[in-house]
Amino acid sequence: MHAITIPEPGGPEALVWAEVPDPEPGEGEVLVEVVASAVNRADILQRQGFYNPPPGASPYPGLECSGRVAALGSGVSGWAVGDEVCALLSGGGYAEKVVVPAGQLLPVPDGVGLTQAAALPEVVCTVWSNVFMISHLRPGETLLVHGGSSGIGTMAIQLAKAVGAKVAVTAGTKEKLERCAELGADILVNYREQDFVAEIKQATGGAGADVILDNMGAKYLDRNVQALAVSGRLAIIGLQGGVKGELNIGMLLGKRAAISATSLRARPLTEKAAIVAAVREHVWPLLAGGHVRPVVDRELPMPEAAEGHRVVEESGHVGKVLLVAP
Amino acid sequence: MHAITIPEPGGPEALVWAEVPDPEPGEGEVLVEVVASAVNRADILQRQGFYNPPPGASPYPGLECSGRVAALGSGVSGWAVGDEVCALLSGGGYAEKVVVPAGQLLPVPDGVGLTQAAALPEVVCTVWSNVFMISHLRPGETLLVHGGSSGIGTMAIQLAKAVGAKVAVTAGTKEKLERCAELGADILVNYREQDFVAEIKQATGGAGADVILDNMGAKYLDRNVQALAVSGRLAIIGLQGGVKGELNIGMLLGKRAAISATSLRARPLTEKAAIVAAVREHVWPLLAGGHVRPVVDRELPMPEAAEGHRVVEESGHVGKVLLVAP
Repeated sequence: MHAITIPEPGGPEALVWAEVPDPEPGEGEVLVEVVASAVNRADILQRQGFYNPPPGASPYPGLECSGRVAALGSGVSGWAVGDEVCALLSGGGYAEKVVVPAGQLLPVPDGVGLTQAAALPEVVCTVWSNVFMISHLRPGETLLVHGGSSGIGTMAIQLAKAVGAKVAVTAGTKEKLERCAELGADILVNYREQDFVAEIKQATGGAGADVILDNMGAKYLDRNVQALAVSGRLAIIGLQGGVKGELNIGMLLGKRAAISATSLRARPLTEKAAIVAAVREHVWPLLAGGHVRPVVDRELPMPEAAEGHRVVEESGHVGKVLLVAP
Repeated sequence: MHAITIPEPGGPEALVWAEVPDPEPGEGEVLVEVVASAVNRADILQRQGFYNPPPGASPYPGLECSGRVAALGSGVSGWAVGDEVCALLSGGGYAEKVVVPAGQLLPVPDGVGLTQAAALPEVVCTVWSNVFMISHLRPGETLLVHGGSSGIGTMAIQLAKAVGAKVAVTAGTKEKLERCAELGADILVNYREQDFVAEIKQATGGAGADVILDNMGAKYLDRNVQALAVSGRLAIIGLQGGVKGELNIGMLLGKRAAISATSLRARPLTEKAAIVAAVREHVWPLLAGGHVRPVVDRELPMPEAAEGHRVVEESGHVGKVLLVAP
């Protein structure tokens, strides 16, 4: 088969479409013939040499895919060759074939095309596990999503609205904020021109955000704690603004607030399977009912993955950038 | 009645036993004739002028008491005049009488004396709400308790052991560590002589602590994050080591860990009542069964509250310092 390889870490041009050995499904695994994958920021870090795949994972980038089941390893039940699926991966989605633990497979939801389904696994699992399983966003509460127009952001807006929460977003342009509003966002903050702490406070009668989904890490840490409501929960899923920051524990304690920081990729199989099962139970009906949809910025041929990385690195997208296998 | 008043903030001598008006129970409240109260660090901060009582709370110090129900406000059921009780208070325990919301009353557990019951409400509610309700300590996991010989510490050790967890403690003297060991602590760290991060790692095969109960705040923040296991939870309940500290979010994210910071006193009535109800359900049977007991350092006459404050400020105690009403 062919896959996107990274002979040497570097810029987008480091991504090389090359012939590689076919993977073989082991016990409890399924071989998927890939129809599409999608670009995640973690893929960019991996390309740059900053994020090695966890032990046992494919060396190729790609944390999610859609496709068709091509073969079953021993001990797999509930799936058949030819099934149309999408999957959460530890790597290897930028390829014509990929091996997936059966617990990370999902059926393509009713009403979603097979290619577009590649836009779902990573964002749905990340948002559901952080905003709902860890941070327990409840109806009537306010969620603040940083980077509202990103793949994660567009899904977080929709899922929070679907459960009856109020949604605030930050983004860097008027056009991106308008897209967020179309998806249901109630409070729009242009982070280039406005202070998100002041805007959230004002829009919530001084209360602040009950849950914040953050991809910035250190750069926003202090302001996120300021923006939290009493009993608020800050869920950090990215470190785009740095790794170490000053935490005002006194303010955190005064608000009885909490901070979590997670990544999906390194979680053990059992935890990933639990998240995938929860997503299938809670989010798949929302997709089938048309209440939530994948937001796709563009589809590129997989051998042109470098172009996809450029788009995401420049934040020139809204939603997901898909890579379609030849 | 008489109560300990604070005419001017200051040292222990600022505490003055004086005649004051009797409190009257309002709707949903109970008047308790106090038998004993206990010293908490928050009382010391209040005496120093750094921790004003929340709105509506008694101006006198004292966050817990034991005693007898003396009168019922309107709308109170389930309690009768003469009942022997202990109670979680927002203040006012250092007095001959105190008014308590009915949801914060607990019966004196079987096997515990009426005076000694004053040692229970604050520590049991703090430990249960943080270690179990927020941080979900599970059987087989490791809890690290800073200040293992404090009132909070002695209760945390016992409750964690009672549910089948392994317990590590820090304390500043060999004698205090021995008392912790008698209560069941498995891993003893003298923080004056040893590095708790290294000791915890070594004692857990490199894994670290699943839950940390911390009273130090900023001073221990970075080392606490280092000492956490994967999926670990740091519960901060005090700021004795300062308010602002550098947080290594990258390490937190790599461990998929979480930090909470809470105080009990400022919580709304409904949350306090929920904690008290959970404590009555889960901890009271352990006390009645003799698996957990209040640890009392000494009993002092309530008018000599200043001496109790001196003992706690010098950390010369193990367990709780009680103040017995005349």
